[in-house]
Amino acid sequence: MTADRRAPLALTMGEPAGIGGEIAVGAWRALRASGPTFFLIDDATRLSGAPIRRIAAPEEAAEVFAEALPVLHRPLPRPVVPGRLDVANAPAVIAAIDEAVALALAGRAGGVVTNPIQKSVLYAAGFAHPGHTEYLAELAGMGTPPVMLLACPELRVVPVTIHEPLKQAIARLTTGLIVEIARLTAAGLRQDFGIAQPRLAIAGLNPHAGEDGTLGTEDRDIVAPAVALLRAEGIDARGPIPPDTLFTAKARPGYDVALGLYHDQALIPIKTLDVAGGVNVTLGLRIVRTSPDHGTALDIAGTGEADPGSLIAAIRLAATIADHRRNAAR
Amino acid sequence: MTADRRAPLALTMGEPAGIGGEIAVGAWRALRASGPTFFLIDDATRLSGAPIRRIAAPEEAAEVFAEALPVLHRPLPRPVVPGRLDVANAPAVIAAIDEAVALALAGRAGGVVTNPIQKSVLYAAGFAHPGHTEYLAELAGMGTPPVMLLACPELRVVPVTIHEPLKQAIARLTTGLIVEIARLTAAGLRQDFGIAQPRLAIAGLNPHAGEDGTLGTEDRDIVAPAVALLRAEGIDARGPIPPDTLFTAKARPGYDVALGLYHDQALIPIKTLDVAGGVNVTLGLRIVRTSPDHGTALDIAGTGEADPGSLIAAIRLAATIADHRRNAAR
Repeated sequence: MTADRRAPLALTMGEPAGIGGEIAVGAWRALRASGPTFFLIDDATRLSGAPIRRIAAPEEAAEVFAEALPVLHRPLPRPVVPGRLDVANAPAVIAAIDEAVALALAGRAGGVVTNPIQKSVLYAAGFAHPGHTEYLAELAGMGTPPVMLLACPELRVVPVTIHEPLKQAIARLTTGLIVEIARLTAAGLRQDFGIAQPRLAIAGLNPHAGEDGTLGTEDRDIVAPAVALLRAEGIDARGPIPPDTLFTAKARPGYDVALGLYHDQALIPIKTLDVAGGVNVTLGLRIVRTSPDHGTALDIAGTGEADPGSLIAAIRLAATIADHRRNAAR
Repeated sequence: MTADRRAPLALTMGEPAGIGGEIAVGAWRALRASGPTFFLIDDATRLSGAPIRRIAAPEEAAEVFAEALPVLHRPLPRPVVPGRLDVANAPAVIAAIDEAVALALAGRAGGVVTNPIQKSVLYAAGFAHPGHTEYLAELAGMGTPPVMLLACPELRVVPVTIHEPLKQAIARLTTGLIVEIARLTAAGLRQDFGIAQPRLAIAGLNPHAGEDGTLGTEDRDIVAPAVALLRAEGIDARGPIPPDTLFTAKARPGYDVALGLYHDQALIPIKTLDVAGGVNVTLGLRIVRTSPDHGTALDIAGTGEADPGSLIAAIRLAATIADHRRNAAR
């Protein structure tokens, strides 16, 4: 293995009662020989299943990585019981995110890969953000909404609206919102994925994309004008496309990313397809950020059943994105 | 091939400017040796690509089928140009549906397989139904709403609401509607698919099924009570299940059918998965009815590109359903 001169990736602990620690170990086993190099911000005493090496700074990760999982040791106040949430540990979960972001902003970490958090326990500890992504936008955003992109080998999707009731997502849908998210998505695909002229496919809202207004007017009055505006500014956007035909095997090769207008319009197809491990990427941040597309899996924590596949894919994609950003910055 | 003593299936012409004729010929080629036996209600003069044999009655289909595609010849008033709609032919399209249904009701056809229609041209000719399924419910319904089930090898889905704007579908969603469709679905799986105790998975409406009301109240107030009512009457129903996790490869083996609360929640996952040819089945009719799950494909009509896979699957499934109904009636 050649020395990796790139800054290592920072992996957060996520919810300690979940599968984060186990899959971090699994990811290290899978990647120790090939890289990319990463280090974990976690309580080193709770980790097992691999050699663990405490490091004092990210800069030590590279020389350790082939032999042991490098850990920035941040002690948890309470012993971790798999599957059992403990609000006393919640501040450390948030602190790990804060530290990872700070290291990435300082250029000492090449990017941040976040293990899943359990929002309920963070809320109980006073966390006041709708989710991980929104919190990261506050720490490292650029004044635009964070854009959540999900990627698996067959498909990339971006939901235009995310965590809100479906009725509210429809009410909040405007031409301006679609245009804004589409622009950020196009910029993200250029910068982070190296796609010079990304092809965006924008879903309709209603069945059959409204059939010229007979099945709902939003596609004609809100979505179609957004597509026209985007095309006028040189973005290769198409739509509104009937939602049920947008994700077929025949349609998928025709675009680089599909924009769904609501959470499940984007997430259903990718989770239906994905077997190998999808990755969640946040576009529009000053740092590189990816995460696995699953949750904390409290029900199987500690059983050894957890599959590190999605985390491994997230680590690899973070490194690829960091490479694209570095190349673009040259 | 042994003589098939079951009544043959009736295949309607569908939109003559579409791919219906071509895929009927393709289906006959695929099934001539194995069956199931079917006949086509169409203008025999417009068909090519296979030996065509005009029959005077469905009862003649079986002895013809191994050698030629049996056709109940119903002349179209105007010559058919592939891809070009002609409202003058619309009444014959509807008449073919009427005749197929009448033959099935009389027991002279084992079931009806419908080729895709083009609603716009039928509307122009005075057709006043939202779609094929609703029309069939009028001809052969049982006083309950028709239930549209889509099936492919990996998944069966039923949309609780179908062809209406998404906003309206949400507004119209009630516990009673979900219970009614779920009951009809369970009965259909028992009667038509031979599943003694069908397992129903019912999707939530909102992201993450509403997260206990923080992401929308419908899941808690409308869907959950429907599941409770269904379980109380002995139907194996579960839900509301977070929509994005309902259709994963891991989740799919856990149920026999998934109920989506709106058109695309059900249709997106099945069309995302389906490569081999999905089938549309109408439950709750006095007759057996299936159809391919694609449209008229006017853009490729006459080019020879049309894939008969979905129609073949529809014909096979109609025969299987007819067998189940016959066995159940014994």
